[in-house]
Amino acid sequence: MADQVKNAIKYAHDHHEDFLNDYKEILSIPSISTDPTKKEDIRRAAEWIAAQLRSLGMKNVQVYPTGGHPVVYGESLEAKGAPTLLLYGHYDVQPVDPLNLWKSDPFQPTIQGENLYARGASDMKGQDLVALKAVESLVKTGDLPVNIKWLFEGEEEIGSPHLGEFITAHKDMLKSDYAVNPDSGLIGVDYPTITFALRGLAYFELRVYGPAQDLHSGIFGGAVKNPANALAELIAGMHDEQGCVTLPGFYDKVRKMSAEERAEIDRIPYNEKRYMEQIGVPALFGEAGFTTMEREGVRPTLDVNGMLSGFTGEGSKTIIPAWAMAKISCRLVPDQDPKEVHQQLLRYLEEHAPKSIRWELDELAGGPASISDRGSKVVQAMSKAFETVWGTRPYFKREGGSIPVVAQMQKLLGLESVITGFGLPDDNVHSPNEKQHLPTWTRGIDVYIHFLMNAGK
Amino acid sequence: MADQVKNAIKYAHDHHEDFLNDYKEILSIPSISTDPTKKEDIRRAAEWIAAQLRSLGMKNVQVYPTGGHPVVYGESLEAKGAPTLLLYGHYDVQPVDPLNLWKSDPFQPTIQGENLYARGASDMKGQDLVALKAVESLVKTGDLPVNIKWLFEGEEEIGSPHLGEFITAHKDMLKSDYAVNPDSGLIGVDYPTITFALRGLAYFELRVYGPAQDLHSGIFGGAVKNPANALAELIAGMHDEQGCVTLPGFYDKVRKMSAEERAEIDRIPYNEKRYMEQIGVPALFGEAGFTTMEREGVRPTLDVNGMLSGFTGEGSKTIIPAWAMAKISCRLVPDQDPKEVHQQLLRYLEEHAPKSIRWELDELAGGPASISDRGSKVVQAMSKAFETVWGTRPYFKREGGSIPVVAQMQKLLGLESVITGFGLPDDNVHSPNEKQHLPTWTRGIDVYIHFLMNAGK
Repeated sequence: MADQVKNAIKYAHDHHEDFLNDYKEILSIPSISTDPTKKEDIRRAAEWIAAQLRSLGMKNVQVYPTGGHPVVYGESLEAKGAPTLLLYGHYDVQPVDPLNLWKSDPFQPTIQGENLYARGASDMKGQDLVALKAVESLVKTGDLPVNIKWLFEGEEEIGSPHLGEFITAHKDMLKSDYAVNPDSGLIGVDYPTITFALRGLAYFELRVYGPAQDLHSGIFGGAVKNPANALAELIAGMHDEQGCVTLPGFYDKVRKMSAEERAEIDRIPYNEKRYMEQIGVPALFGEAGFTTMEREGVRPTLDVNGMLSGFTGEGSKTIIPAWAMAKISCRLVPDQDPKEVHQQLLRYLEEHAPKSIRWELDELAGGPASISDRGSKVVQAMSKAFETVWGTRPYFKREGGSIPVVAQMQKLLGLESVITGFGLPDDNVHSPNEKQHLPTWTRGIDVYIHFLMNAGK
Repeated sequence: MADQVKNAIKYAHDHHEDFLNDYKEILSIPSISTDPTKKEDIRRAAEWIAAQLRSLGMKNVQVYPTGGHPVVYGESLEAKGAPTLLLYGHYDVQPVDPLNLWKSDPFQPTIQGENLYARGASDMKGQDLVALKAVESLVKTGDLPVNIKWLFEGEEEIGSPHLGEFITAHKDMLKSDYAVNPDSGLIGVDYPTITFALRGLAYFELRVYGPAQDLHSGIFGGAVKNPANALAELIAGMHDEQGCVTLPGFYDKVRKMSAEERAEIDRIPYNEKRYMEQIGVPALFGEAGFTTMEREGVRPTLDVNGMLSGFTGEGSKTIIPAWAMAKISCRLVPDQDPKEVHQQLLRYLEEHAPKSIRWELDELAGGPASISDRGSKVVQAMSKAFETVWGTRPYFKREGGSIPVVAQMQKLLGLESVITGFGLPDDNVHSPNEKQHLPTWTRGIDVYIHFLMNAGK
């Protein structure tokens, strides 16, 4: 067993240049999912992934058409008695504009110092290659210690519109014990990180209606409830002075943080001054009684994402607007339910909206939070792999954002995800000059070799 | 004397079609004062007014440049021993957005039934034409019974920023006994109305800044004060639950209503159900302890006129906006001072804005309220003219809107104004589908003919 790891690691190091060449090859395909002129490139990228899977001896490799871009599947189910991992990846990338800000062609991968620059280098072709090359290192030097099912999609950067459909139609084929998602990164080069939870989302549009049309604010001002003022009052009432959300029952299902988890979060390196400089705010603010890291990951939120009413051009127009609108969304944590939050917001509005206005609420998007057991076999296998390669126990992080595919795997397949990739915060994902730190990428392959071995034990 | 009135009235009735053609001609010029691309149209409208004055035989007709849009002046000073009236008008109009709600082109005057639809039909090109055509009817059939000085400005809808300067520079030229301002209307078709007081205005733009750029609401949500939420909270705090404005010292200088004035206001016909139907609100709301009429005229207000932040398009975008903006204005009553209200708002913001955001406040427009003696000669001359034409003693009203020029004439020239125009409450001024009721407009010309005769006695 120790020999198998050793041989696989040696294989990986010996084939570093070959791995890098494959990495550059897939990066040179401009598989921009949102660009209708790139359909053929998307298809080429899918075929490239399928060819890789075949070269690793995967079975039932197939490029599945969907309502949008194809899904690539392949499997290796020969590790009798070992668990089955569903390895997720996406082969599509973000657009590249503004192109003039790139220092090198986004689809001509360019090494500068320790970094490889290209669109998708970090998000997430680099992470796809980490998983593929770890598996290659194992299959070329022995038997795979676990069963693997690969699932690559080509629509992650446009919100995975057809993935749920695909998963639902192939539930049996995708049945696994754990999901592994490398579409993420580390807090820093020296801070190995495992993301074990993501927040959910409940997104609404609230429209407040006053008079049938804009009124002259002089003639009618004082006699009519102004819908913009009413909307402001409704929004203001959604938080108390402690920064807590006031929707009735909002915190009822919020899972309490254990002292142990709190200590784990406190371990995460955090520099308040640098954080404030990074985002450019004069002071931080959040729910009383929680740290910034806790507020970002463990606690639910309510934020206005957009607001519009009346006259917003240059100069002055003296009207009482006919209506006012706000986009309002909540980030949810376990075990909040987006449908229940919708009901809570409706109840809040029924209780607080004045009779002098009308209102409408639409739900625009929603998905629950997801969380994995840090004590589970797969998380522990990843944790141990990091300790072996980095020499440090990894940091356990709850991510504040949402990854729809993680929620879908939980909902549709009942799978917990361990989310571990090897991007870095300054990788410029979704921006010009995206890059991947190559020494971290190489270490990532070692981590995944150890992880797969640990998971098979 | 009686013959002169009769002849003038006959002239007016005989020339109804000509009057209407001139009316449509000025309405077809899109003289939107707040739109920098309409400078040339503004100039054309000023020249059109000057040409009208010349055609009435007015002397010293001139288009005066100002720091903004021009002022048009003309005079007739041949009525020896008779008083001199300063006749005011403005030839600029409000913007037309949202254009898609107009049923006809706002600058192609369209008659539907008894109404003429166009931007400015009521506010106030229609009223300018009432005064011009009453004078035309008199000069074409005899001598003018009073001396007249005309003053037309092109910046009323943006708060008359250069009029005070112009008046100050031409005090001798403008010296008069009374000011007459037709920029108003009737309570209803059957209710002749004289407005003897106007509210003032203090108009602001408040901008709240949070992070340096829009943030991902998942990654950062909960740790950062959202500037849209902060703006909503600041706006909400500007009123208490009784509908009173909370700016410190806001009511200190508000003049108390006498019992006699309250009774005069109570005479004004008012049907709450019809009023609510007219403006299309489910219920009325205003400062506790006052009637709707009092809230509209005698009491000061604070209203949001526009609000903008973050993502306002279709669908959902999960951001914490970098900034949020609101246009906020107060209607002022005697003896509030717009500069003091500016200070009160600054003090409110200093006391209530959280340290986690930055804010900026700009003053966009401002002018004090004004009030005239209901017993003065010119008010009585107008009152008698109404009784003659309508057969009813007119209602004396405090108008909720602002006409900065009325305040400036009081302050700079020591002139009281009688404010009487022929708009109606459902004219959609400042809104889509602005219109003028044509039978009322025609009667208005008769009233002005009688008024000028009465004033010259």
